[in-house]
Amino acid sequence: MRVMVLGGDGYLGWPTAMALAARGDQVLAVDNYLRRTLCLQTSSPPLFPTPDLVKRSELFQALSGHQIQVEIGDLRDYRFLEGLFQRFQPQAVVHYAEQPSAPYSMMGFQEARLTLLNNLEVTLNVIWAVLSLAPDCHIIKLGTMGEYGTPNIDIEEGWLTVEHKGRKHTFLYPRQASSLYHTTKIQDTDLLWFYVRTNGLRVTDLMQGPAYGLSTPETALHPDLRPFFNYDDIFGTVLNRFLVQAVAGVPLTVFGRGNQTRGYLHLQDTIQCIELALDHPVAPGELRILNQFTELFTVNQLAEKVQRVGRSLGLKVEIDHIENPRVEAEEHYYNPVHTGLLELGLKPHYLTDEVLAHMLQEVMPYRDQIDTAKILPRVSWR
Amino acid sequence: MRVMVLGGDGYLGWPTAMALAARGDQVLAVDNYLRRTLCLQTSSPPLFPTPDLVKRSELFQALSGHQIQVEIGDLRDYRFLEGLFQRFQPQAVVHYAEQPSAPYSMMGFQEARLTLLNNLEVTLNVIWAVLSLAPDCHIIKLGTMGEYGTPNIDIEEGWLTVEHKGRKHTFLYPRQASSLYHTTKIQDTDLLWFYVRTNGLRVTDLMQGPAYGLSTPETALHPDLRPFFNYDDIFGTVLNRFLVQAVAGVPLTVFGRGNQTRGYLHLQDTIQCIELALDHPVAPGELRILNQFTELFTVNQLAEKVQRVGRSLGLKVEIDHIENPRVEAEEHYYNPVHTGLLELGLKPHYLTDEVLAHMLQEVMPYRDQIDTAKILPRVSWR
Repeated sequence: MRVMVLGGDGYLGWPTAMALAARGDQVLAVDNYLRRTLCLQTSSPPLFPTPDLVKRSELFQALSGHQIQVEIGDLRDYRFLEGLFQRFQPQAVVHYAEQPSAPYSMMGFQEARLTLLNNLEVTLNVIWAVLSLAPDCHIIKLGTMGEYGTPNIDIEEGWLTVEHKGRKHTFLYPRQASSLYHTTKIQDTDLLWFYVRTNGLRVTDLMQGPAYGLSTPETALHPDLRPFFNYDDIFGTVLNRFLVQAVAGVPLTVFGRGNQTRGYLHLQDTIQCIELALDHPVAPGELRILNQFTELFTVNQLAEKVQRVGRSLGLKVEIDHIENPRVEAEEHYYNPVHTGLLELGLKPHYLTDEVLAHMLQEVMPYRDQIDTAKILPRVSWR
Repeated sequence: MRVMVLGGDGYLGWPTAMALAARGDQVLAVDNYLRRTLCLQTSSPPLFPTPDLVKRSELFQALSGHQIQVEIGDLRDYRFLEGLFQRFQPQAVVHYAEQPSAPYSMMGFQEARLTLLNNLEVTLNVIWAVLSLAPDCHIIKLGTMGEYGTPNIDIEEGWLTVEHKGRKHTFLYPRQASSLYHTTKIQDTDLLWFYVRTNGLRVTDLMQGPAYGLSTPETALHPDLRPFFNYDDIFGTVLNRFLVQAVAGVPLTVFGRGNQTRGYLHLQDTIQCIELALDHPVAPGELRILNQFTELFTVNQLAEKVQRVGRSLGLKVEIDHIENPRVEAEEHYYNPVHTGLLELGLKPHYLTDEVLAHMLQEVMPYRDQIDTAKILPRVSWR
């Protein structure tokens, strides 16, 4: 299948591009290095340097024999995207090309503006490129479980049937997010759903929980093929931050009371989900929403797991509760359905002690390069 | 009170600015003439020429003694807005500054792009100007009843309490619109609601139905003080189109079966609602949503009213059903609550035969200037 991976340099984009190429898809990875630029601007270096997308694809081809085509450019430029569509004629587009950090979106006006305009303009461009140039193309969009927030009722998979005053209606599940970044993902869903029902677009919107991990079968070929690994407060996700704190010998910093519950998944399962979505395209005019995570944990549970496994590896791991820089519920009901991907065939990789130990061991060689000043929250929501 | 009226040149903005100045508010009207530009670009002239905002405010001051300050500039330019806030120090902002046409937003990619980026960027700028420079300022935002769409259950006033599997949660009422323009209004609400609950903004979001009419107490001072009156398929609203068709002696064109039901209101009631919102500001961290219309009509009912009243004035009025250019339900349940504004004190001006006759008489002098080619749909949703 001809698949465009937008945001192909990213934490998820690069391992996805490799996995698809390895299984025989024709892959075009597109990126403008926005995330690298923002990491540089916010002094948030990854744990180890990552060669650029062009170099990584050359290395991957040399080692695996599989080609990943690369184009560097800004998807906010519609003419650039149009040219890619005309040349590559994608049958599917995996759309990761967004400013991906909640704390970044809360730093100030310019960061909020960049997040809002980048994310919505790229999504609109992708929609119109498909409508105009490849109407049968399946859009697979990375959304986030964060779109739903933490309502006091079960989170269904995308849709909610409401009985009200003796009548019934099925709505897109009402969404309420806890950062501007997550709000732009809600707005993306608004936009996609509008064009799906009006113009017959085919869309799978994946509501993903926080991902963790830094290896996939393809990264085993060479350390330079590993994805970005950010452990800082702005671009690092919570479990990755804890791993680095455990290795650095500083306390794991839990925000507030730590009872915030989320659905998590391993990077390898993100890729599996993308493959399942690609292999089961939706019909024209269908928006399929899948809740993409494998296990629920509170932040406290994650911290305790890292502590236990870290100690078994001889690390000194303490846990600190610090003031929550975010505006979010610290005690809440959380029961999201996530059967859609299992029904499509997802075989989860769970967060076992072995998996955790392996991740800690992958971080250990970089102990001296960790800048612990970058892990504590630099951004407050208020 | 010091009130900024953003979009102060528009169909609603200009009469609002005059009414507020007349009752003693200090008013700053801001516009970049976007609507005039788009009317020009789409060959959609208003029924009669309208002097520009600077000239109208001079005329209004000469005749009434009330000043309306005017600034011409683009609110997508944050520095421009920042300067206005620093100088004027608004206590309230009435935000109408959006691309207001559903058909325009459906013309093609460039029009969709302009609508999305203009509307969201201006709303973000207004939010940040308030947060940074006037945190107590009350934002009164014109939304639309079109955000709700036509669900099969009652439309509540902004919020919906859902019982689901034995638990209960109150959500922002789930929204699903039938044009890209209306979708950008949903996205505006997403944005405002996020900053209300995170940063304590004060916001009233008015879900308005289609407005009609061309006179208010202030327009009686001089014909050049009347608002824009568009009757074309792109910028004209349905009742205004029907009035012009009746006067021109061409059939009223009902889209599809004509059972689309909406909540309507007179221009004077829009102004009354804005005044009521201004006089009853909300608390910090409160998003008040009010459904702003006075009466429900189907398109068929409106056409029949115009036909009956038109005939009583000696006009030859026929009704044609034409293929619906829009993607929308032509038969649907519709029962929206609208008690909030009545409770604040709204005294509705209903669409009586006298009101309709008066509007027809206001259109009649311009019979020879009507371009009937501009009334039939030029834009298809598909």
